Amino acid sequence: MNQDIIVSIDAMGGDNGPSVIMAGCARALTRHPSLSFILHGDEAELKKCVEELPALKEKIKIVHADVSIAMDEKPSQALRSGRGTSSMWKALQSVKDGDAHLAVSAGNTGALMAMSKFCLRMMPGVDRPVIAAIWPTLRGETIVLDVGANIGADARQLATMGVLGAAMARALLPVKKPSVGLLNIGEEEIKGQDNVREAAELLRHWDLKSLEYYGFVEGTDIGQGTTDVVVTEGFAGNIALKTAEGTAKQLSTYFRQAMASSFMARIGAFFAAGALKYLRRKLDPRRSNGGVFLGLNGIVIKSHGSIDGLGFAHAIEIGVDMAINDLNDKIQTDVALISAKTEIIVEQDEQKA
Amino acid sequence: MNQDIIVSIDAMGGDNGPSVIMAGCARALTRHPSLSFILHGDEAELKKCVEELPALKEKIKIVHADVSIAMDEKPSQALRSGRGTSSMWKALQSVKDGDAHLAVSAGNTGALMAMSKFCLRMMPGVDRPVIAAIWPTLRGETIVLDVGANIGADARQLATMGVLGAAMARALLPVKKPSVGLLNIGEEEIKGQDNVREAAELLRHWDLKSLEYYGFVEGTDIGQGTTDVVVTEGFAGNIALKTAEGTAKQLSTYFRQAMASSFMARIGAFFAAGALKYLRRKLDPRRSNGGVFLGLNGIVIKSHGSIDGLGFAHAIEIGVDMAINDLNDKIQTDVALISAKTEIIVEQDEQKA
Repeated sequence: MNQDIIVSIDAMGGDNGPSVIMAGCARALTRHPSLSFILHGDEAELKKCVEELPALKEKIKIVHADVSIAMDEKPSQALRSGRGTSSMWKALQSVKDGDAHLAVSAGNTGALMAMSKFCLRMMPGVDRPVIAAIWPTLRGETIVLDVGANIGADARQLATMGVLGAAMARALLPVKKPSVGLLNIGEEEIKGQDNVREAAELLRHWDLKSLEYYGFVEGTDIGQGTTDVVVTEGFAGNIALKTAEGTAKQLSTYFRQAMASSFMARIGAFFAAGALKYLRRKLDPRRSNGGVFLGLNGIVIKSHGSIDGLGFAHAIEIGVDMAINDLNDKIQTDVALISAKTEIIVEQDEQKA
Repeated sequence: MNQDIIVSIDAMGGDNGPSVIMAGCARALTRHPSLSFILHGDEAELKKCVEELPALKEKIKIVHADVSIAMDEKPSQALRSGRGTSSMWKALQSVKDGDAHLAVSAGNTGALMAMSKFCLRMMPGVDRPVIAAIWPTLRGETIVLDVGANIGADARQLATMGVLGAAMARALLPVKKPSVGLLNIGEEEIKGQDNVREAAELLRHWDLKSLEYYGFVEGTDIGQGTTDVVVTEGFAGNIALKTAEGTAKQLSTYFRQAMASSFMARIGAFFAAGALKYLRRKLDPRRSNGGVFLGLNGIVIKSHGSIDGLGFAHAIEIGVDMAINDLNDKIQTDVALISAKTEIIVEQDEQKA
């Protein structure tokens, strides 16, 4: 597919201002020369920034927005102050209006979630958005969701997440029928939460061609890449994600300390410099930047707020991959299928009654 | 303190049989020569094993048990088949009868939890046991609880866990007034679960001299060692623990692969061999083996089932540290204090009404 993808950018979102966001756009452009951008934000400021990025100049359209959403604004407050007027809202509006294929923001997560729901609305059959992360594993990459959009999830919501995650896996990973695991705890004394067990039954019952239900997985399985998709509710998912980030940072520190701990170790580090550089690159958190909002009528990517150009470019590229691979069409087809299958159960139940 | 500690051992628990358990006892003895052991299990088998461990011979008393609890037995089934008769139950009974200072088992977690509750009973003021893990961090060690005894926890249970964890921290870590954090998710759109917020209020209200309530922490804070104690309910706690284990394994694999990825890297690994050996030792999961059951009238340590002698010795040593430092006295004093403080609130509320 050689589509020209148009990316709508909330240029005012994030901790580091529009210059970093635009540097990210320029970097994404070098890898995907057919991209173009609609940049939403303070026109004067954006024009000034673009002066330093000549390559970007012909690939952008600047749309002025009066309001910028602050990083610490509450979602309800952000909706009141920024609905229709903010760079964040306008970035979403471009997707809604069909002017762009996806929106990317490094702004306030809660505000972006609330505005996405209001502006783009939920897909039929999905009742709330979830955030999916692309998790680097020993086997490649695994989609983990929900990593923090909602606390708690009932069986149906968990099972639906499996369907959304599998569609995303088919769009991003080299896999046709992704395996889906439900995150659970394996201790014998606890047979898992009721909702998790019921979600397993639903996924088995739906028996979709688009995914392979694997069964329960544990925390250790995520990093091993046991399944292509791991489903959990947002509280545990966010804690898993943050704990893994913390552990990765901790081990990298140990390793760095070890390689500088003695004269001999430093000689070793000198010889292994090439390998260590490759490893640093592999572990660079900027290369896994970009949370994906799933379940909306449109592709929305949330970048970390404190990211630099390289990280923001990565978030853009995830969204571009999903647009090229028609993520939302895939999701809609699958969700329609489970709605139909669930209706059959309801009808059967009614006939019995 | 130069106490002679007696350790009661479920010699039949674990995946690898009594010879490994007893090798662990022998190893613990070399570091704590004043220890002695009561070994519960099949007398003939244990006698045979001890022949190969002459140092252990004078330090043990073997108590025969007819029944061994299987690793996959359900807790209810284990209670029926093993109450009063199994090596696991008898190991706990020795603690109850005052014959031993602590019990250690590498057996079935669920069965051990159920038997501990029945045999030792809960401490007054604590309504259910929790499992605490000692988590290696960049600053030293952090106590994380609950890592899987119970799914879900109300505000009072979470706050009580803070008190139990702080007592354990005072027994094990070089800290007089441990800092306690409540694990939460930091996204702006979600203000955290109600129970977590209410637990924070309780801890602030109790205002105990035995701990410093720090506030909310996120998953990333655990590995950084931000607080001495991290409190969460068992589902999220177990997932955090297993996810960290998985991530540590994943990064260790990356390091190993990097140091073998080229001729130059292998030369580097040769020079850095000493440092890398130290690092391997530091990351050895056997050195963080040993989950602690808190809230019972007695000290019970759960070892991983698939552990070797070194790992089992580590689990014993954790329990010995806690016995020497009067963990349960510390807990009882603190729990009595919070019960008194809560009664005052209840009385005030009644007067108002």
